[in-house]
Order: sequence, then C-alpha cells, then structure tokens
Amino acid sequence: MNAELGPVEVVGAGLIGTSIALACRRAGIDVLLTDTSPEHLRTASGLGAGRAKQPEDVPALVVVAVPPDHLATAIAAALDGAGDDTIVTDVGSVKSAPLDALAAHPHLARYVGSHPMAGSERSGPLAASADLFTGRPWAITPHASSRQAAVRAVASLVEVCGAVPVRLTPEEHDLAVARTSHVPHLMSALVAGTLAGAAPDHLALTGQGVRDVTRVAGGDPTLYSQIIGGNSAAVAGLLREVRDRLDLVLEAVTDGDRVGLESLLAHGVAGTRAIPGKHGGPVQAVAAVHVAVPDHPGELARLFADVGASGVNIEDVRIDHDPGRPVGLVELDVAEGRAVELVAALESKGWVTHR
Amino acid sequence: MNAELGPVEVVGAGLIGTSIALACRRAGIDVLLTDTSPEHLRTASGLGAGRAKQPEDVPALVVVAVPPDHLATAIAAALDGAGDDTIVTDVGSVKSAPLDALAAHPHLARYVGSHPMAGSERSGPLAASADLFTGRPWAITPHASSRQAAVRAVASLVEVCGAVPVRLTPEEHDLAVARTSHVPHLMSALVAGTLAGAAPDHLALTGQGVRDVTRVAGGDPTLYSQIIGGNSAAVAGLLREVRDRLDLVLEAVTDGDRVGLESLLAHGVAGTRAIPGKHGGPVQAVAAVHVAVPDHPGELARLFADVGASGVNIEDVRIDHDPGRPVGLVELDVAEGRAVELVAALESKGWVTHR
Repeated sequence: MNAELGPVEVVGAGLIGTSIALACRRAGIDVLLTDTSPEHLRTASGLGAGRAKQPEDVPALVVVAVPPDHLATAIAAALDGAGDDTIVTDVGSVKSAPLDALAAHPHLARYVGSHPMAGSERSGPLAASADLFTGRPWAITPHASSRQAAVRAVASLVEVCGAVPVRLTPEEHDLAVARTSHVPHLMSALVAGTLAGAAPDHLALTGQGVRDVTRVAGGDPTLYSQIIGGNSAAVAGLLREVRDRLDLVLEAVTDGDRVGLESLLAHGVAGTRAIPGKHGGPVQAVAAVHVAVPDHPGELARLFADVGASGVNIEDVRIDHDPGRPVGLVELDVAEGRAVELVAALESKGWVTHR
Repeated sequence: MNAELGPVEVVGAGLIGTSIALACRRAGIDVLLTDTSPEHLRTASGLGAGRAKQPEDVPALVVVAVPPDHLATAIAAALDGAGDDTIVTDVGSVKSAPLDALAAHPHLARYVGSHPMAGSERSGPLAASADLFTGRPWAITPHASSRQAAVRAVASLVEVCGAVPVRLTPEEHDLAVARTSHVPHLMSALVAGTLAGAAPDHLALTGQGVRDVTRVAGGDPTLYSQIIGGNSAAVAGLLREVRDRLDLVLEAVTDGDRVGLESLLAHGVAGTRAIPGKHGGPVQAVAAVHVAVPDHPGELARLFADVGASGVNIEDVRIDHDPGRPVGLVELDVAEGRAVELVAALESKGWVTHR
C-alpha cells in the first residue's frame, strides 16, 4: 500500500525505532536497520523489523531514533550519507535545539522533524510493537525551508504507523511539550520528592489523588533530564510563570486570603476543562460509579460482563488501591446521563456500588 | 453487633454524614439526624439513614460532619448540648485549628477528632453510600486530654464503617494531609492553570501524563480553599520547601546543569517508591500490558473474560483516551513476573497487545 515510501532506514533500533520499523514492515515497506549496538540490531531483525543496512542500500526515507543528546549529529550524518533525494526525519522529544545545531547544513531542505507522542516505561527493541502509535498524536514540524515532498513523506510515515498527525512549527512544538509534558513532569517530581523520607504513618493517609499527581515522576531521570535539558528555554520560561503563581498561592495561604486562594484554584479548574476529550472532541461530562470488587481473578471479568450487558459505554476505569483490605474499589467513568442506569443494572446483579 | 455504640447523632446530612449514618443503620445502630436544611434532613431520612433528632433524644456519640469553617462551633454546641457522657467526634479534613478554637472548652475530654479519607466528586445526601468508607484509611486524632472511652467509641465507629483506623496526633495529621493531599492539590492546580487559555493545537499533544497530574485540580475551589485555608501553617511550611526546590530546578534548567536536574528527578523517583502499595504492603513491581480495544460496549467484557481465564491478577487498569480514533488502548498493570504470560494468553485470543 505504502511501498513507494521505502526503503525506509531506521537509525536506532530501540523501542521507538523498532516499533516504527515493525509498522513499516506490516505495510510491506522494505526496512533497513542501523544501530551502534550489534545486539539491538540482531534482536530487531529477529523480530521481523527489517534487515541490517548494507553499504549499497539507498533509503528513500531515514528515521533517526536515537537519544536526545545524539540527535543533531545523527541527523547530519543521515543527510550527508544518503542519496540526493533521501528525506530525513527524527522522532526526538525536542525540535528547536537539533534544528539550530543543523542550521548551516547544505541539505537541510530534505529534513523535517517529527515527534510521536507514545512510549512505554520499558525500553529496547524487545518492548517494540507495530501498534505503539495507533491513535496517538504525532507532531510533524517542518522548518521554513523544508521541501513539500519531505513533509509529504513524513505524513505518509505517520499514516503507516496509524497515528494522528499534528502540524506545528518546531518552536510551537517545543512550547507545546513544555506545557503538556515537561513542566507537568517537573511539578510531579517536586510533589513526589516531598514524599521521600516522610513518616510511614503519615503516608498511610495517601489517597488516589497524590498517586495520580506523582505517577509520571517515576520515569527514568537520565532520559528526562536529557529531554527537559534539551528544551531548556521553553521549560524555563513556563516554569518561571509557575513559580510566580506559586508565590501568589503561598501568599494567599499565609495571609488567610480565601478569595485569592479560591480564584487560583478556579483557574486550575478552568485548565482541566481545556484538556481535549476522548477522540479529540470537547470534554464530555462524566460521572463516576464505584463498585466494590473482591480482589481475585475472575471478578473483574464478571463485572465487565455485567457492564457490557447494561449497554452503557465506559469512558475510563481505574482500580483504587485500598490499604489493608482484600476488596478493590473499581471506578467506572461513564457519560453523566447514564450513571443512574449503570448503577441500577449493576445492583440488580448483586454488585455493591456507590457514586 | 455494635448497637451499644448508639444512639449516634449525625450533625450535617451531606455526603459524608449521611454515608456514616447509613453504615450505622446497617449495623443496627439507632441514628439521629440534624441538619440546618430541612430538605437534606428529609432526603437522608427517606434514604433510611435515621430519624430526625427530637429534644428528648440523648446520643451516646455525636458525629459532626459540617463544612470546615463551621467545625469548631458545631463541635462546641455538641459538647454543650448533649449528655454528660456523650462522646463527640468530627470528620473534618483539618484537625489542629478546630481543636485550638476549643482549647478552653470545659468538656474537651469527651472530644476526639477523626478524618475519613474518602469522598466523591458529588455532594449531598443523595450521593451517600454505606460503603463509601470500605477499606479506606480513617485517621483518629486524640488530643492530650481525650478520654480513653472517647477514643474507643470513635474506633468502633470506624470499624462499623469498614474503614482502616490510622492513629495520629492532630498536629501529625495536619502535617500528613498537607503532604499527601493539600500541597499535591495546589501543585496540580498550578499545572492545570498553565493549560487554561493554551492554543488548541498545542493541547492536541496532551498525553496521559498531564491528565493524571491535573485530575484532582478539577475539585470544587470553594471547598478546597476552606480545607487548605484551615491548614495554612502546615501547608505554607511544606509549600515553602517545594518553592525552594522549584528554584533549584529552575536554576538547573537555566544553567544546563544536567547532573543537578537528574538528581532532582531521582529524588522524585524515590518519592514515588515511598507510596504504600496495594493492601498497605510494600510496592510491588508491576509491568504494564497495553491492549487495543474497539471502543464499544461488550469489548471490555470480552477482554476481562480473557484476562480472568488467564489466571493473572490485575493490579490496576486504565483506558487511554486517544484523540481521533474509535479504538481504545487499555493498560493492564500486573505483577512483573506475570506480564509475559498475560500477553501470550491475550494474543492467543486474538487481542493486539504491546508492553
């Protein structure tokens, strides 16, 4: 179907690179693999992600999928080493810094940056999957002199991977990920840091809220310091705004200024409503239904069979971790108008629920 | 079974008060209801949560469940108005400030504070449930002169409600909730605030991480400004520490100090590992398995039937909101050693998975 895209060379057979290679192979595209680690290369080939690149191979598209600190060098090498018409893209988390480093490159018109918003807490080719990008946003970030043919080739790659293209300039992209990813990550790490060394009987009061807030803070510090460090201008700008607002919060708390505190909290509520909803549409009003579920295999299946029979679609689900009890609380989020119906259906099957 | 606890008077027939009343009624305890709103009182009685208190009724235990700003007044009224042996507790989110306000009360020995760690985004008696507290932590916070009989009565109430008692001094409680709830809430609100008014094509890159970080920021600003304002000393102290650490992060980002940044992020990782795991035990290493699931009723039931048949217990589950596609990604968290087995079981049933 998209065989005219190939051959595609993937430089860096880690999680992201190998996943892209697998998606291309699934579409019948010839894939050439390059990696400084012969072991990664063997593993990725063994998984059916493509064949090791030979000196005579000339790729039509090179996808650079190396760690953030090596992006600019690897992109330059790809532009230098391939054919006159070879398109080069990368999948790095930061777009301006590598582009700045490449500004004087004679073949820059053949380069278009990109960034798939997907990942896993695992890394390496064994964690790869052709489905890693299905339905995920994938930023395409042409610069001022990018060729149209290069932009089209990268858009085809995004399509082959089943992702949803989002077109942004490199500068806009970096501001966007500072806001939607890097600053939230740093704030999550700051909250998590306050829990390190806290008294266990204080931590016994931990609820779902702080678990949610600190979840992303569990990510690899080395990788995230490269990502955030590579986007320092955008991150520092936004972080200064947050620090100034934190000072206002601190002042309101210290002065007992309830009106000020409430207005800062209301600003946060407005922000949560700005997040795009499922399927990219406006956020739909959801209601939570809680169900008590015995904590052993089979009970969740029984619950979801009864949920399925009710005909009410589940927007989200989470299992609440309860200290000290062999019973779980499952939260089912459904459209606001359907909660009463779901509760009635589940209670008629003997489930203990509350909203 | 615990009928000797009664009669229990519940002051304030909102979500928490009515839920406690329902749990007591379920245990066969006589429940007396008081509320300034005749409508709440009628609704709660109608739900079977108890009967309106009459002048001749003398409760053995009074549970004060009113908004934070009215706690001290309502606790004092309960100590003044009831019998010489009546025990008084409250369920407020903050413990020191009301106690300070009551310091000179002649009957203070009959008061023991408490705080169930449960709630709902809904409020009012109609949202109440006898199961709201099942398996949740419930702090019991005696002060220096609390009678032992009073502490025992409150512990019985916690047991009747199916919650897990956590004994703390009022001061420790307030420090604990500043750390596990109030400061995380404020930080979540600050992150959410940066999304308000952001460009929609920037927000298109929003992933699950920032959704998690900002989830609690959707809570009612009026209620949270009362809660946080009532714990201002503990919150301000910890928030100052966080602000100082945020300044270090900002400095590391601005100076390109990767080592410093990485060490601050590693501190966050240590904090996420300090959070108590499921069943209050140490955190178990979990692995995530992702499954692509068509987004319509019935598919989740089919998935969980296959999960149940695999015999692998699910620690947590979440549905990833994907923009633009009618397919959901369900993340199943399982013990690290069982992930390979689960993937094999699901793929044999035709599910598309990745780790």
